Amino acid sequence: MAEQSLSVFKTTSYQEKPFDHELSFGRTFTDHMFLMDYSEESGWHDARITPYQPLQIDPAAMVFHYAQSVFEGLKAYRSPEGDPLLFRPKQNLARLNQSNDRLCIPQVDEDFLLEALKQLIHIEQDWIPHTEGMSLYIRPTIISTQSFLGVAPSTNYKLIIILSPVGAYYKEGINPVKIAVENEYVRAVRGGTGEAKTGGNYAASLKAQETAGKDGYAQVLWLDGVEKRYIEEVGSMNVFFKIGNEVVTPRLNGSILNGITRDSAMQLLRHWGYDVVERDITIDELYDHYQQGDVKEAFGSGTAAAISPIGQLDWGENKMVFNNGETGYLARNLYDTLMGIQYGQQYDPFNWVVNVNQPVQSHVS
Amino acid sequence: MAEQSLSVFKTTSYQEKPFDHELSFGRTFTDHMFLMDYSEESGWHDARITPYQPLQIDPAAMVFHYAQSVFEGLKAYRSPEGDPLLFRPKQNLARLNQSNDRLCIPQVDEDFLLEALKQLIHIEQDWIPHTEGMSLYIRPTIISTQSFLGVAPSTNYKLIIILSPVGAYYKEGINPVKIAVENEYVRAVRGGTGEAKTGGNYAASLKAQETAGKDGYAQVLWLDGVEKRYIEEVGSMNVFFKIGNEVVTPRLNGSILNGITRDSAMQLLRHWGYDVVERDITIDELYDHYQQGDVKEAFGSGTAAAISPIGQLDWGENKMVFNNGETGYLARNLYDTLMGIQYGQQYDPFNWVVNVNQPVQSHVS
Ligand SMILES: Cc1ncc(COP(=O)(O)O)c(C=O)c1O
Ligand SMILES: Cc1ncc(COP(=O)(O)O)c(C=O)c1O
Repeated sequence: MAEQSLSVFKTTSYQEKPFDHELSFGRTFTDHMFLMDYSEESGWHDARITPYQPLQIDPAAMVFHYAQSVFEGLKAYRSPEGDPLLFRPKQNLARLNQSNDRLCIPQVDEDFLLEALKQLIHIEQDWIPHTEGMSLYIRPTIISTQSFLGVAPSTNYKLIIILSPVGAYYKEGINPVKIAVENEYVRAVRGGTGEAKTGGNYAASLKAQETAGKDGYAQVLWLDGVEKRYIEEVGSMNVFFKIGNEVVTPRLNGSILNGITRDSAMQLLRHWGYDVVERDITIDELYDHYQQGDVKEAFGSGTAAAISPIGQLDWGENKMVFNNGETGYLARNLYDTLMGIQYGQQYDPFNWVVNVNQPVQSHVS
Repeated sequence: MAEQSLSVFKTTSYQEKPFDHELSFGRTFTDHMFLMDYSEESGWHDARITPYQPLQIDPAAMVFHYAQSVFEGLKAYRSPEGDPLLFRPKQNLARLNQSNDRLCIPQVDEDFLLEALKQLIHIEQDWIPHTEGMSLYIRPTIISTQSFLGVAPSTNYKLIIILSPVGAYYKEGINPVKIAVENEYVRAVRGGTGEAKTGGNYAASLKAQETAGKDGYAQVLWLDGVEKRYIEEVGSMNVFFKIGNEVVTPRLNGSILNGITRDSAMQLLRHWGYDVVERDITIDELYDHYQQGDVKEAFGSGTAAAISPIGQLDWGENKMVFNNGETGYLARNLYDTLMGIQYGQQYDPFNWVVNVNQPVQSHVS
């Protein structure tokens, strides 16, 4: 733990917790949050756990104008023994600093922040739902708070961690979705911010999503911004295809987010003996394989849903249906194994899980 | 004026105004601001002028996470008679709605907002600096305020207008700057958000600007995100080149902001009899013309500086010096004419200026 200290200010008015069945995604927040400030003079300072409350922010704060901000997303799961478990949190904090670098935001002390996060989860652990498949979503965010209208990196920042108990992403378990290949809008491009988890990428995605939603699609599949041929991501998830005997996922080309579920899925698949290939793959190539009957499965990976099978992928007039529109073998096994590990119900071969109630512990990643 | 009404709540503690010579850009804000809220039930409502004050915003507000926001930038100038003048404000409000469309933000009533802006400027007119070249910068911003962590358009928004008295962009008048062609980072791409005035574009630009700044450049010249050859913008300005007898500016290709100064400069140049061509132009083509001695002048255009001559443009090893590094004839004339019109010191052939103290008036654009 770093030199920095963490103050804790408990709330005096605890909320009544909703029933698990009342929860959807990201609308309910817990009693406390974590805050930390940055200034040029003091660096990151004043780390504190406080009652959840509105922020007082100057209307000239740079985040409102120039979107200099980054965020992360991970979850706390309840183990069979009732302990709060985190899944590879160090990866999220490392990625936060990678995003910081792209956005000219000062680096954070990852070790200190992990300890602070564990303390926050420890305090809020009663908020972790007990129902199978539910969890406590953790949202760290850094916003630029200097009151200045010049376009330049801010001199001041606020790091906030808020917590939201969330329902199962799929109400009835894992469920294949219908996706449209996006041909007009672009989420990210080589040389842009696609590799960083920063607000602007998501703002840029809204229009495509809205249009696809009206046409009955759950999400869009993003192509690269340069040639509009290379497959990048699906919605806010990474994407995998089982083609013949290989599992193919787009390589991290600079405009794709380095998903922690993506990495975990690759490790599991390789552990199981599959050939996993990270490479460029165009939508044309995928369609060719599809026509030859070689695409056995398609699925997305991400913290929100773990694994999300793609039942149908529409590329203009060309419609691809994978595994008869049903959840495939790999998607099912990855989903079950990830969930099993995340909820502490299954052997954790890679030492991925961090038990918040066991502070002294060596964990790899 | 629309049906909506505007409430005015005056401050009880007026700030002491700084001296003009103490002002730089975007650090000082006036006594009042304009606010308006949006909800699905009520549409845009509760339009009000209030004391300038911090906003109370939930830490889960979508703007902090997904950067769903747009903004505008224009100025109020003091006429020789002491009246506050706006320059083509309808263009800014029309562009605000174009940005809204791309970012899935509900449209605003432009006529109502113009009247509200005029009233705000009327109230704050003593804040407009008296010194030549200084003005009151106007920053309308719309932020998404729904407390929700799903990636989707917000159901709630806040429109804010704040005002900042600003110094002359060039302390000693118009001054040529040194620019680097950006080869690595990309600001915007076809299919992205470059045409909209939204925070994410500016967040994406910080890293390139920071790097160029360390190397002694004032700004970068942005190339297109697809081929990295086509010239797009310079810093936060549009860009012009005098090549032979033509004035060339990149056409509005979807990733370039439709600058109001750009349009005004084109109108003036055509009025003066110049051939102005909006077309694709690559950095290679520019360099070829340069080597043949055909590039007579280069300059940027934007609200902050009006016209900003480019003295030197470095494209890797290839260095281009325009007009001996001095302000060219066109840049000088455009600057003087724009300033003359904006400050009401010169005949306004296009009826561009709106006098805030003369409410009843027909103005074209
Ligand atoms: C754009 C994008 N891609 C991929 C992912 C998946 O990353 P992870 O597996 O770390 O959740 C996310 C979300 O988390 C995302 O926002
Ligand atoms: C990216 C960008 N391009 C161009 C401009 C110039 O536009 P305008 O002339 O309307 O100020 C601006 C700023 O205003 C800008 O932010």
